[in-house]
This record gives sequence, C-alpha cells and structure tokens, in this order.
Amino acid sequence: MTESATDGHEAAALLERTRSSVNPELRRAVESLPATMRRVAMYHFGWEAADGAPTASHAGKAIRPALVLAAVRALGGPAGADDPVVRAAAAVELVHNFTLLHDDVIDEDTQRRGRPTAWTVFGTADAIITGDAMLSLALGLLAQDPHPASRQAATRLTACVIELCAGQQADCAFEERPEVSLAECLEMATAKTGALLGCACAIGALYAGAGAEEVDAMDAFGREAGLAFQLIDDLIGIWGDPEHTGKPAGADLAARKKSLPVVAALTSDTPAGRQLAELYAGPMSRADVTPAAEAVERAGGRDWAQAQAADRMGRALQQLSRAVPDLGAAGGLLSLAEFVTRRTM
Amino acid sequence: MTESATDGHEAAALLERTRSSVNPELRRAVESLPATMRRVAMYHFGWEAADGAPTASHAGKAIRPALVLAAVRALGGPAGADDPVVRAAAAVELVHNFTLLHDDVIDEDTQRRGRPTAWTVFGTADAIITGDAMLSLALGLLAQDPHPASRQAATRLTACVIELCAGQQADCAFEERPEVSLAECLEMATAKTGALLGCACAIGALYAGAGAEEVDAMDAFGREAGLAFQLIDDLIGIWGDPEHTGKPAGADLAARKKSLPVVAALTSDTPAGRQLAELYAGPMSRADVTPAAEAVERAGGRDWAQAQAADRMGRALQQLSRAVPDLGAAGGLLSLAEFVTRRTM
Repeated sequence: MTESATDGHEAAALLERTRSSVNPELRRAVESLPATMRRVAMYHFGWEAADGAPTASHAGKAIRPALVLAAVRALGGPAGADDPVVRAAAAVELVHNFTLLHDDVIDEDTQRRGRPTAWTVFGTADAIITGDAMLSLALGLLAQDPHPASRQAATRLTACVIELCAGQQADCAFEERPEVSLAECLEMATAKTGALLGCACAIGALYAGAGAEEVDAMDAFGREAGLAFQLIDDLIGIWGDPEHTGKPAGADLAARKKSLPVVAALTSDTPAGRQLAELYAGPMSRADVTPAAEAVERAGGRDWAQAQAADRMGRALQQLSRAVPDLGAAGGLLSLAEFVTRRTM
Repeated sequence: MTESATDGHEAAALLERTRSSVNPELRRAVESLPATMRRVAMYHFGWEAADGAPTASHAGKAIRPALVLAAVRALGGPAGADDPVVRAAAAVELVHNFTLLHDDVIDEDTQRRGRPTAWTVFGTADAIITGDAMLSLALGLLAQDPHPASRQAATRLTACVIELCAGQQADCAFEERPEVSLAECLEMATAKTGALLGCACAIGALYAGAGAEEVDAMDAFGREAGLAFQLIDDLIGIWGDPEHTGKPAGADLAARKKSLPVVAALTSDTPAGRQLAELYAGPMSRADVTPAAEAVERAGGRDWAQAQAADRMGRALQQLSRAVPDLGAAGGLLSLAEFVTRRTM
C-alpha cells in the first residue's frame, strides 16, 4: 500500500493545522489538572518525559479532532482557531486518550507511540486515576461551553464513551473465548473504534448547526470510515513495520489478539484457518508469529480485511453524501478518510 | 457514641424517602448499560447477585443524593419525586459509585457493604470499564437534563471528579511515603470525601435557583460535614464493629492505612506515636492490630479525631447559616449532617 501523494499531503496538512489549533486548548486543559495527574497526562501525550522534562512532541495524529473541524467546515461552519468547536475537538481528543490510558492498563500493553505506556512508568493506580480525570476534563470542557450545540454534543459524547467501554469489554471477553464470529468481531470494532470517529463527525455537524438527519449521516460516515480504519490498523498489527507502528512486529499475533483478519481466518473453514487455530490454542512463542501471519494470509484473512476496508469506505462515502450532497465541499473529510485507510504499512 | 433517637429517626426517614425517589431513576440509568457492564453495576449496587439473580437491596445509604434533595428543600425548591433534581441526585450517586468501583480495584479491597467487591467477582478489567461507563452515565444524565441549572451542575460535578481523583491519588501516594503531615492528610480527606458531599449540596442549591454566594456556602457546608464524616469513618475503620461495617475489625490498621487518627498519632511526638510508627514500619500481622489501635488511642489520635469532627461540624453549621439564615428551615440538612457524624461504632 502506498499513499497517493496528493491525498496524503492534504490530510497531513489538515492534521498539522488541527494540531496547531487544538493542541493549545488541549494542553491548557491538561495543565489544569492537579500535579501528579498532570504529570501522567503530559507524559502520555508525549509533551514531557517521565522525569517531567519537556520533549519533542510525540502526541497522536489528532485524527478525531481533525474530523470534528473538517465536519464543521463541510457543513458550512467557521471552525477557526478561536471558534468554540476547538474546545469540543479537544474534548474528543481527551476522551480518546482516556480510553488509551485505561486500555493499556487493562490489556497490559507496554508500548504506545514508540514509548513505554504510562502505567509501566507511573503504575496502574495513577494511570487509572489520570484516565478518570481526563474523561471528566473532557466533559467539563463541554459543560462550560456556552455554544448552543454543546449540550447535544455532551449527550452524544457520554453515550459514545459507554459504547467505547462496551467495545473494550467485548474485546477483552473475546480473548478468553474459544470461538468468536466475524459479526461479533465487526460489532466490537464498530463500538471500540467506529463510535468515536462517528461521534467526532456528529459533533462537528452539531456545531455547524446541522439538522438531526445530517448529524446522523455524519455519525454513520465516521463509523464506517472508523471500521475501515480499524481493519487497516489490524492489518498493520500483523504486517506493520515496527519502525512506523512503534510496536514489535506481529504484536497482535504474539498477544493472540482476535483482530478482524485473524477472526476472518479462524472462521474461514480452511486448512490454514485450522492451523492458525492450533497456534492460537497454546501460548504463542516469538517463533510462532511468522507462521501465524502466513496462516492468516493463506486462509484469506488479509485479502478479506483489505476488501472489507474498501467496502466500508464505499459505505462511508454514501453516508457522507446524505449530509454533504456535493462531495466536493467535503474535501477535508474525504482526505482524512483516505488518509486513515491508506497508511503505509 | 450513640445516636440521638429523634435525629437518627429523622435522617433515616429522609434517607429512606431519598432511596424511594432516586433509586428508580438510578436503576433505569444502570439498566440502560450494555449487558456485561449492566451486570457488574447491578451487582455493585447490591440489586443482583453475582449470577444475576435479584437480591434484597444492599445499596448504599444514599447520603449524597439525600443531601442534594435536602439542599433543594432548604433553599425553597420543590424536590418532589418527579422533579428534575432527582436526575441530578442520581448522577451524584452514580459518580460516588464509580469512585468506589475504581478505588476498590486500586486499593485491592476485597469487601464492600459486607459483600465481595465487584473486581473480585468480575475481574479488574470489567470493574474499571464499568466504572468508566457509570461516570459517563452520570454526566449523560445531566447533559440530557433541560433544567437551567444542569449545565452549572455538570461543570461543578466534573471539577469535583477531578478533585476526587486527586484525593484518591494522594491517599495511594501516602501509603508509600514514610511521613505524612496532618495538614496533607486533612487536605486529602477533603478532596476524597468532602468534595462530593459539598458538590451534592451545591447542586441542590443550583436546582433551587440559589445565587452564587449561597451555592458556595452550601458547598462549604457539605465539605466541612464531609470531613467530619471522614473523621468518624476513620474512627470506625479502627474501632468499628465488623457487624456494622461489613469489613474485618481494624481493617484500616491491618492495611497500614494512613487514616486521620493514625496520622494524628504518628505526628504526636509521644512514646505511643513512636510505638505505632514501629508497628507501621514492617508488615502488620493480625496480632499487631490490637496493640496498634491501643497506640493510636494512647497517642491521642482517637480523642483528636473526635474533637476535630465536632469542630468541623461547627464550621459546617456556620457555613450553612450563610445560605439558610434560619437554620430551622434546614431541617433535612441538619439531621443528615448529625446522622453521618453520630453513627454507632
């Protein structure tokens, strides 16, 4: 997979602009936390080293706040650097990072964005507590926002957090269960990833003053694009380059994650699928990772995930055209959607 | 300590009335959660056994929602069973229970209200995730509430959660530190317990349409009463009857908790204080619990905590009189404040 140079540039520029307008608000919010939680959060966002020294930023790509801002623009809202929607975009990014802090504790993941996860540095107690505080900070930003859309934004965001929780819960439960269907796995990925991307787009639509139908269409666009994003992320989790991912090669296989390509292979009723099931039945050694990846590929899991990602992108565009009939006006949203599904492996 | 019969009856009746008006709203909210989280939450509230069978309710005393309703009444609001403030009271109780779920995971506490804690039954992942969902549920209730006070209530409640997190963080940090001052310990207890009792009273005042000064006075009343409550709770944690507390006798000493009477003893510069410090320096066996309790008492920690609780109640009433000059009109708030500081040991 290679990026189309134009789309990649446009999305990269949009993400860069998003970070420069949203990060000051985000950082101001994080800096308002009491000392210990502030330090954990500053570390997690990559703004400080473990000892509190400033670092070159390792903060995330800011895809979710970029979707908020692009959705406002696509629906004719202003979305300048001092627009109230910047605060809502920061709230969405805080929610995303609260889930990362807690998920890393729950999944015992030790690496994130190429650095040790917060709980490995500060302990699980401080990581859980800081996640809690970041969620409250996010919803506090919306509660303090006098914009007429902020109440509906908060309603959607709280419902979305519950869906994110359900997704993470299902993800954990699947690791313990011998069999998981592809439908269950798609539902889990929609909750765990699609929901917040959808919510980001819906919040943008709300701040642009869109009607209920457009808001729902934008939510559906984000969900479908989010599922495509997750499918690509799962492919990267198996075949991604550790240089780009910041995680060891085949990390998801080593952890016996029931990611989408894996479940597609396990439920394929093929010899390669059964071979994968045997590898997954016992503890996986580092030496099992390559044969497992090959089994996923031979069982058709890789092709299925790539085709499914393309299909979801098609559905995403269909939904988008319900809210923005002239897709030419949806420039930012389109480049972002393509960006997240064309990431280099 | 014995309860004065009249006050005890009045508060008990008020708590009972609160439960019958708030529990339906609370239960409706909990029942809206996705299946697994719903089950963890239903268990935590004592409405279901671990296997999902209905139980005789073990739910908490509902002191915080009772404070919300009593504060509305004291300031002339309606607070009937179908009043919007019932929703806000349920939100406050959800926030309280979210902190219990997470604190039990973090502190590795195995008993709560005489039953195994949720994480021991469902695992830490489900307990963390359900806590996250309960916090979102709470803030979602306020976001959906069209009452003009709901926005300010949400702003206060999110700030309060951050303070609760800071309190829990300090509490954990103190366990690791050799020396903690009494001032630090009082500050921690104010954040961990006082803040939410204060917020409950402030939210009641907001829903009654009170002005900023009255709202702040009600917050200060709740904080001071909350600190008195925590002092008594700490005394119960050492000298309480396991029949009443649902925890083993001297549980806080066995866990080498730096509770307020303990820190008062440790910082007393007395022979008994030094004896306690020696006991706390190593791991505590069950046989060490009685000598440790005696050392706290001889070092003056028990008397200090009782006097401090009385002093805090005095300050609480002073603050209350700023918001409700005729304390006769504050009946419910007074009985609740006396109830929480006169619990039998």
